[in-house]
Amino acid sequence: MYRSHTCGELRIGDVQKEITLAGWVQTVRKVSKSLIFVDLRDRYGISQLVFEENISASLDEQSIGREYVIQAKGVVRERSNKNPQLATGDIEIVVSAFQILNKSAVPPFTIDDNTDGGDDLRMKYRYLDLRRNAVKKNLELRYAVNRSARNYLHENNFMDIETPFLIKSTPEGARDFVVPSRMNPGQFYALPQSPQTFKQLLMVSGYDRYYQIVKCFRDEDLRADRQPEFTQIDCEMCFVEQEDILQMFEGLVRRIFKDVKGIDYNEVITRTTWDEAMWQYGNDKPDIRFGMQLANLKFPSHTFPGRHTAFGEGKQGLEGAGFGVFDNAETVIAIAVPGCSEYTRKQTDELTEWVKRPQIGMQGLVYIKYNTDGTLKSSVDKFYTEDRLKTIAAATNAQPGDLILVVAGREERTRKAASELRLEMGKRLGMRREDEFKLLWVLDFPLFEYAEEENRWVARHHPFTSPKPSDIPVMIGNSPVIDNPEQYLEHPYAGIKANAYDMVLNGNEIGGGSIRIFQRELQEKMFAALGMSPEEANHKFGFLLGAFEYGAPPHGGIAFGFDRLCSILGGSESIRDFIAFPKNNSGRDVMLDAPGTIDDKQFDELQIKLNLK
Amino acid sequence: MYRSHTCGELRIGDVQKEITLAGWVQTVRKVSKSLIFVDLRDRYGISQLVFEENISASLDEQSIGREYVIQAKGVVRERSNKNPQLATGDIEIVVSAFQILNKSAVPPFTIDDNTDGGDDLRMKYRYLDLRRNAVKKNLELRYAVNRSARNYLHENNFMDIETPFLIKSTPEGARDFVVPSRMNPGQFYALPQSPQTFKQLLMVSGYDRYYQIVKCFRDEDLRADRQPEFTQIDCEMCFVEQEDILQMFEGLVRRIFKDVKGIDYNEVITRTTWDEAMWQYGNDKPDIRFGMQLANLKFPSHTFPGRHTAFGEGKQGLEGAGFGVFDNAETVIAIAVPGCSEYTRKQTDELTEWVKRPQIGMQGLVYIKYNTDGTLKSSVDKFYTEDRLKTIAAATNAQPGDLILVVAGREERTRKAASELRLEMGKRLGMRREDEFKLLWVLDFPLFEYAEEENRWVARHHPFTSPKPSDIPVMIGNSPVIDNPEQYLEHPYAGIKANAYDMVLNGNEIGGGSIRIFQRELQEKMFAALGMSPEEANHKFGFLLGAFEYGAPPHGGIAFGFDRLCSILGGSESIRDFIAFPKNNSGRDVMLDAPGTIDDKQFDELQIKLNLK
Repeated sequence: MYRSHTCGELRIGDVQKEITLAGWVQTVRKVSKSLIFVDLRDRYGISQLVFEENISASLDEQSIGREYVIQAKGVVRERSNKNPQLATGDIEIVVSAFQILNKSAVPPFTIDDNTDGGDDLRMKYRYLDLRRNAVKKNLELRYAVNRSARNYLHENNFMDIETPFLIKSTPEGARDFVVPSRMNPGQFYALPQSPQTFKQLLMVSGYDRYYQIVKCFRDEDLRADRQPEFTQIDCEMCFVEQEDILQMFEGLVRRIFKDVKGIDYNEVITRTTWDEAMWQYGNDKPDIRFGMQLANLKFPSHTFPGRHTAFGEGKQGLEGAGFGVFDNAETVIAIAVPGCSEYTRKQTDELTEWVKRPQIGMQGLVYIKYNTDGTLKSSVDKFYTEDRLKTIAAATNAQPGDLILVVAGREERTRKAASELRLEMGKRLGMRREDEFKLLWVLDFPLFEYAEEENRWVARHHPFTSPKPSDIPVMIGNSPVIDNPEQYLEHPYAGIKANAYDMVLNGNEIGGGSIRIFQRELQEKMFAALGMSPEEANHKFGFLLGAFEYGAPPHGGIAFGFDRLCSILGGSESIRDFIAFPKNNSGRDVMLDAPGTIDDKQFDELQIKLNLK
Repeated sequence: MYRSHTCGELRIGDVQKEITLAGWVQTVRKVSKSLIFVDLRDRYGISQLVFEENISASLDEQSIGREYVIQAKGVVRERSNKNPQLATGDIEIVVSAFQILNKSAVPPFTIDDNTDGGDDLRMKYRYLDLRRNAVKKNLELRYAVNRSARNYLHENNFMDIETPFLIKSTPEGARDFVVPSRMNPGQFYALPQSPQTFKQLLMVSGYDRYYQIVKCFRDEDLRADRQPEFTQIDCEMCFVEQEDILQMFEGLVRRIFKDVKGIDYNEVITRTTWDEAMWQYGNDKPDIRFGMQLANLKFPSHTFPGRHTAFGEGKQGLEGAGFGVFDNAETVIAIAVPGCSEYTRKQTDELTEWVKRPQIGMQGLVYIKYNTDGTLKSSVDKFYTEDRLKTIAAATNAQPGDLILVVAGREERTRKAASELRLEMGKRLGMRREDEFKLLWVLDFPLFEYAEEENRWVARHHPFTSPKPSDIPVMIGNSPVIDNPEQYLEHPYAGIKANAYDMVLNGNEIGGGSIRIFQRELQEKMFAALGMSPEEANHKFGFLLGAFEYGAPPHGGIAFGFDRLCSILGGSESIRDFIAFPKNNSGRDVMLDAPGTIDDKQFDELQIKLNLK
């Protein structure tokens, strides 16, 4: 061993000990010819080395620099100038001998929390970027989450069982990465998008409780902060109903909070339905760290059947004021932004520009200032009297001093815009604190989504999700065919709810799952509902349909997005900061320069060739 | 939850409790119309259900069969006929209500330890095979090893850090599996053969102690019991020398023995050199559960320079008896098989046939019976007097009652044959007990191997393994070019030893590793020694060479073959039995029917096409 101790462990009690350290040179401070201080760093911390007299002269000759790897022998001494910021700050090591184990060129950026390296440079030299304390802390947090999850799941009788990576391509939803098989020319493996069918087979095999922290692969165009390979905490349980799953995995997340962040998350975890989340937040993964709920001033009745506008049942709403924008809109939604009634024209103009950006896509923004003196002033004073503005303000639950923002347009886009505007205002007002954590279960998702291009139903979660028991007859009793695409919302399938649930943390979906179908007949019906012929279903999923014939138990599960969970716990928006060797938005590893070309021998053996356009 | 308890937990203390169980029907025994016993099984055990009177009638109507999934409610009662074989054998459940949760077709083979299902059938219905207790025990053992290893490594400051799966193809040794990149047309990722370079980069980044239990991929022709995807316990440490690694990972294996098998493996773990293992056992992974070491009666002097035959220095050996087979052989090796001097002619003939099989490849077998009365009788009595036979017997350390077996021929083949013969005789004599475990370190491997076809050196371990410090000048100071292929053994590189080590358990390599090169210059020299041009080295491993410029610390590591380790601990020769979803010898998953074809859209998007011969 090149060291007797690490750079993070020496304390005042070690004074007088003769020790050896090894690590990286963080800084060199030359006070005089016969007094040089060197901060030596390793994963565990930093220790101060002192080179005095003779030894300082030999250091000079060897001239060590930043990031050199050295080994130093010496005696621990109490510091005269203690550094309370540093765990080892009470002591220093008086060096008696040292050697350079390896030199370092000058790094292309500084190894500091506030490095001068840009993103591209840091990714190219990721092995240096990983030395920075900020990145190291992220990977330590990731390992702590990993460890905590494993301990909890182990204590709850879950078994880690490895599922295969070279499987069969059954694209349904996302694209598969494929792997040509040399031993089976013309055939391909696929990399798993998730171990979904395998974990279900393990339930059929009676393994009762399964987990895996496992890499998954999706060949999708990479939006910001998506990775072609990502990690899931993947779990499945037998003989459970939805409530059992919710409780088990609330326990998991509470445990992670405790182990990793030292937080006792004891409060009841709010549950809401998908319908309610869309109604109140315009979003199926609402950030509930703050209120500012949507006031639904106008909406198409088929979207939320049986609900009333925020004005109240039978009350006058927006109509009759002659304001065409509201009159012609399918949907009008307002939020009351607390304490912003004094916004200047410049500020409201900026917000208007913000909602008009293509990502948000609104035509404009109406504002109503609810002044602290109780008066109201709006951008639609021409159309609405102060009394009517008061009614609107009341519908949004605004208080004096609030700024009411109103968007209008087609239902889907407007609701999304209202949601985005709410999140933006929450962020600007500091209501979305990195160190505050709010969990939420979203339940009762729709089972199907309408795919316009193909005029058919697709699975919102995946084809193995069970409908609510009460909706099974609706699914069994109706054809999936959509005769009138314009009115797909009136098809019986549109209202079928799934036994599916998402866990949301601070406005991010961190986990999602469902109770699964476990009867062959219902699974076949589901495949048919998605437009698969019996032959296709059998070709793709025959093994699962077969397994369901031999005593499949009721089961369900959940998968957590491990990268995302870590980034939120670490207070970051970027999952890349929590992955040791991430890829960029083109799916490239710029450090390795991968992907790359392969040679003729490889093409030849795999019996494939390029067919470039 | 469908149950209040599992099928393995009820005990005499639970008598009178009203409980609910759910599980699979193992057996149905109908004693009479009003008395039916059902054994209900889950992962945790088996509980006996009793259907009496009314309820037995309703059971009859529903007629449950093997592998049906049922839920049963009832009261726990003490059994009159206790079953001490069963953890739940003191009690039974008097069923008051039950329901069938799912039916089962009759399984294609019995779900028993001694199933009637052949290998192919069991693989096709792997989800049923996994229900068998024998297979379940294997996966439980696998999880226990996983858990034990993680705990030990965690306690010793190792961090689990995930490395990428989509990397760059740098074939050197085994073939890579490759993955076409849709976003980078014409380019391919490779799946990692191991995380070798990444774990080294993590050391350069200062992570100090890394581990991962990780899938690796090699596209090799599958010999029996090889899998295209396999799992490694992969570890790396900074600032260590070989001795530190040996001690750390002896600790890991001792811990696994303790946690998983309840064995205190306290004895000193034997260490031997590669040279010595080849000399004594003809094999670099000797099974030392038994002796029967090789007696080297004749060998080519360049192979083991400075060693003497078993006859002793300067003593007469086999020569001068006129026995051409020995006189013309490069190598003659004997083993003394204990207690087999009474073998019949039929038995020795059978052994002769055994060594003549193509896998062993000997021309014949000479035997010498060292009878219990002290006389000797051999198949070469024509050539050797009893006195000379005695000298041979003494050289093999034979005792009266032993059977001495002698093989002769070319060095490499003969040594391998002697090794195989030793293992075979050890097996036949019951000296290789599944429940006995003997660990061994093999050290000082050759750094290079000679590749005859290409007349060049290849890395025996991998190109990142460091030579012994004393051999570095030999490597630096000599050209790798082999001028005379016939005499490659006389090239200075042939004698260079590596800082590499293998851990051997019961004759299987369970782990291997090395101290790594950490200096750019030496790594470049190594790539050159393997015949790589500087351009090629830079194209393939530029990132690693670059990393070595910025303060790379001394480091080393090891990787354990997780599948193999589990199979040996489980007392099996087949790793497939310890993998949930293994592939067959053609790399196929017969359950999934993978690999399979992909559709035109996939070819089109990936911009590749088939080029079948």
